Amino acid sequence: MWASLLDEPTVVVDGEEFDGEGIRWSLPTGDYSFAELRASTDARWPMDEPAVLTVSKPGGLSRGIHDVTFVLRVRMSYIPEELGALDLDREAEGGDRPMSTDNLPFGLGVSLYSYTEDLGVTMTVEDCIEDVADLGATGLEILGEGHIRDYPNPSTAWIDAWFSGNERLGLTPTLYGSWLDTRRFPGRSMTVAEGAAQLELDLRLAGRLGFSFLRPKIGVISEDLRVDPIWADAVQRNLDLAAELGIVICPEIHWPTVIKSPVVEEYLEFKERTGTEQFGLLIDTGVFDVQRYARRGGSAAFQMGTGSARPPEVPFVPVSDLADVMEHVVYFQAKFYEVDDELVDHYIPWREILDVALDAGYSGWFSSEYEGHRELYRAPDQLRRQHALIRSIAAERA
Amino acid sequence: MWASLLDEPTVVVDGEEFDGEGIRWSLPTGDYSFAELRASTDARWPMDEPAVLTVSKPGGLSRGIHDVTFVLRVRMSYIPEELGALDLDREAEGGDRPMSTDNLPFGLGVSLYSYTEDLGVTMTVEDCIEDVADLGATGLEILGEGHIRDYPNPSTAWIDAWFSGNERLGLTPTLYGSWLDTRRFPGRSMTVAEGAAQLELDLRLAGRLGFSFLRPKIGVISEDLRVDPIWADAVQRNLDLAAELGIVICPEIHWPTVIKSPVVEEYLEFKERTGTEQFGLLIDTGVFDVQRYARRGGSAAFQMGTGSARPPEVPFVPVSDLADVMEHVVYFQAKFYEVDDELVDHYIPWREILDVALDAGYSGWFSSEYEGHRELYRAPDQLRRQHALIRSIAAERA
Repeated sequence: MWASLLDEPTVVVDGEEFDGEGIRWSLPTGDYSFAELRASTDARWPMDEPAVLTVSKPGGLSRGIHDVTFVLRVRMSYIPEELGALDLDREAEGGDRPMSTDNLPFGLGVSLYSYTEDLGVTMTVEDCIEDVADLGATGLEILGEGHIRDYPNPSTAWIDAWFSGNERLGLTPTLYGSWLDTRRFPGRSMTVAEGAAQLELDLRLAGRLGFSFLRPKIGVISEDLRVDPIWADAVQRNLDLAAELGIVICPEIHWPTVIKSPVVEEYLEFKERTGTEQFGLLIDTGVFDVQRYARRGGSAAFQMGTGSARPPEVPFVPVSDLADVMEHVVYFQAKFYEVDDELVDHYIPWREILDVALDAGYSGWFSSEYEGHRELYRAPDQLRRQHALIRSIAAERA
Repeated sequence: MWASLLDEPTVVVDGEEFDGEGIRWSLPTGDYSFAELRASTDARWPMDEPAVLTVSKPGGLSRGIHDVTFVLRVRMSYIPEELGALDLDREAEGGDRPMSTDNLPFGLGVSLYSYTEDLGVTMTVEDCIEDVADLGATGLEILGEGHIRDYPNPSTAWIDAWFSGNERLGLTPTLYGSWLDTRRFPGRSMTVAEGAAQLELDLRLAGRLGFSFLRPKIGVISEDLRVDPIWADAVQRNLDLAAELGIVICPEIHWPTVIKSPVVEEYLEFKERTGTEQFGLLIDTGVFDVQRYARRGGSAAFQMGTGSARPPEVPFVPVSDLADVMEHVVYFQAKFYEVDDELVDHYIPWREILDVALDAGYSGWFSSEYEGHRELYRAPDQLRRQHALIRSIAAERA
């Protein structure tokens, strides 16, 4: 539209009103005061382009969640003036952009899995990566099959864009999620050689893209979640390659697998037996969900099942369990479901987790994985809230 | 995913089940029977790529709306088999693709305005244009400001893509919608020279893109919707240019402006006075809405107003009014809100409209403008229904 058709814009931030000359407009055709906008004959607000409104507020916004309302009146010549103009009225609620100058004693990243609802609908993979940088994170986690175009053979152009994008945005590739799909071949199990080949394929691709961690999601063979025994030999055959590529292989400890479990014992025995530095534990913080048994239906993973079956009874996991395995933990997938308007997470006890991890000397990544309500536009907001919350805890501890 | 992880796909069409070898799979890596899919070691179903399932059904589908359910089981190795696999279950309901071999005595087109809810969210302008062709239409109507990137100065690359895309898809540009935004300049009205300049700008762009009709949406000056008097001189100054470009200028008769109204009289007087062939009437079929006064809140255009004001009382418009002006009608905007599962439109009396228009010898465009419930994914389905309905009426008449 011709931008001179805009009338009476008002921005309300936490109840404080700004309007008229208090708002500066940045449009693709230039920057304008409101008077300049009204007097303009060539300023345009094109379809599909954001207008950036800058409001002068001494001191800026405090860190946290703010209520922002934007009211705009558009003169529509073809509707009688007596009937009014088109009033656009949008309310938003969201965290501010964390300052990237924060000096955190650990890394903050985001898994692109968080954007599952938006991906392919409102956002491309590239949009998601831009959002990770925009929210102030520096670590980027992906799913190989889910986010690499033409997996397992991305084009050179895709790989070039991956590196130049990350450099421009200041992002470090952290973890590459892969699958050891042991039920891939109908009617028979996967052999060790096939498992090793799948792992090698993903390791090489992860190495080519600059990742430091690889999480193989290993198939299970029983209701109590014992993993397919081929995993150990499949991983062992790839330890030299992982060392060469500088990648640590870390299976995920994800509810209903918990910290004190036969699976974790099996992983730690493997690590001790091989004496490798290329293997460690990934903790999904969903295991510490304090409301798990207050909620219906179990975890999201099991909600995807047929529904008639129920997950096995699994004990509540105190954060103190984490202390016992911290020396083997190489990565945190900072799974969460909801951070409210007061920056409180009623599910995951972040302060306790950070205390145990950081007191044990952990300085690696916390990589956010949003897995709450599946609604468009929700993940970007929730990720900002979670990072603001984690940063505020880090500041309290400092 | 590896396509061998797919299990037990079933397609149900109007209650008839197809499964196993009855379904052929087309994936980016190749075409497969279900047995071939299960035996494959390299077949992949990549993220964001459709799998096309072809079901062999003698005689094919009848024209109309069909219930289609698709059930798919995916073996997820990391979830215990006892708890089941991921069941994907999708129901769809939609019209089949009309045969493009239909020999209609008029043109069927679509206005991209129909996709307003999807545009910029689930679809790009290019996606919408692809959908217009896919649903079997041959006419393409756009809004200049809304659909041309960098309006009013699209790049040569954009224009080249416009022409090559339309040629590939078999689409003819029909009508270009523009605005004569008479309230564009705050505090003063638009001059005739300014109005003529705006119209010239849009005419030249419409001509460059190959359109045959231009609809200027003219600003109004009173509650009873009299149009700004500058329109007549602004149009008259452009009649030679319109002739040169082969474009007919046709203001829209859109409720609450009705056929028997001072505005239409003004238009017809202009046409008679100038004797021009470059001017005519565009009828928006929303004027014939038989349920207008049964619905709350009036038309969508007025729902956008402030809400406190009410549109003026406007009489019900019988389709017989159309017969009186058919000699001046150059274009139909086939506005509609909903076509139900039985292909019945309870709002717009299509049979009557087509009878009056075609009996009067009209052989121009009916260009669909969906303006019903604003829900994602709804417009493409409704447009298919409406075209199936209009084609079935044309077949009855033939």
